[in-house]
Amino acid sequence: MVFRSFMDQALAQAQAAGARGEVPVGAVVVGPGGEVVAQAGNRTRELHDPTAHAEMLAIRAACAAVGSERLVGHALYVTLEPCAMCAAAIAAARLAKLYYGAADPKSGGVAQGARVFAHAQCHHVPDVFDGINAQASETMLKAFFAQKRKDNADGCE
Amino acid sequence: MVFRSFMDQALAQAQAAGARGEVPVGAVVVGPGGEVVAQAGNRTRELHDPTAHAEMLAIRAACAAVGSERLVGHALYVTLEPCAMCAAAIAAARLAKLYYGAADPKSGGVAQGARVFAHAQCHHVPDVFDGINAQASETMLKAFFAQKRKDNADGCE
Repeated sequence: MVFRSFMDQALAQAQAAGARGEVPVGAVVVGPGGEVVAQAGNRTRELHDPTAHAEMLAIRAACAAVGSERLVGHALYVTLEPCAMCAAAIAAARLAKLYYGAADPKSGGVAQGARVFAHAQCHHVPDVFDGINAQASETMLKAFFAQKRKDNADGCE
Repeated sequence: MVFRSFMDQALAQAQAAGARGEVPVGAVVVGPGGEVVAQAGNRTRELHDPTAHAEMLAIRAACAAVGSERLVGHALYVTLEPCAMCAAAIAAARLAKLYYGAADPKSGGVAQGARVFAHAQCHHVPDVFDGINAQASETMLKAFFAQKRKDNADGCE
């Protein structure tokens, strides 16, 4: 299945983010012809930028690549349910489709919390497909935070 | 009143954005000591970047200036009610206070629509002060869109 392959690339970006000490989330923007236009992992710590989520970096890179602030006909693959910021950016970019992996009860803004796409103030709603390779994303996130807790506990000794 | 002065600077940024052909919205980040840390106007068209709202650019510039992804003790002044993307970025940046001008029934995400700060998935809620110099912001936005409609009508002749 094609969407598995793109999600695999997003998972590879998430893995690379985790290896940099960032929360392991990755995203890929795919063009109307099925070509990868941009991919990114989370870089909030490295860039000292609270907006540098994987989705935001991938959207900005894709817009730069196509020379437009709108990604009509494009799809975004991301390993974790987008937060409210990223969901609103997905709408602003007019992305046609959103595929995401694990649900995010703690910070998600698509299927819970702000439910950004569910309001009249959201002017574009993508087709949303959730749970794509969710287990791989969840496993990576759980391992990352377990290691963080271990590191913090070790640091307190 | 001090907050009027910072909002005046945000309005100047909005005016400059309008002069560049951007929707006239401006933002200023003020540090804990009352110093202006960053200011920006909307640049979505110029940068081909749907995330380049005034608030986002000001937050990113302020984070770069202080070398942190968190703007603890800082305030954001913006001429228009933030959308869901910007509201979530304000929360992520841990801004202490949000002062905004005009309400935005069409695209706002603070007092309407997604109401980003009103959900458990939002991990920081700033003190919010609305309606600061709202009339000046509204007048500028109305004039901008009236001119746009006129330009479009002229272009159809």
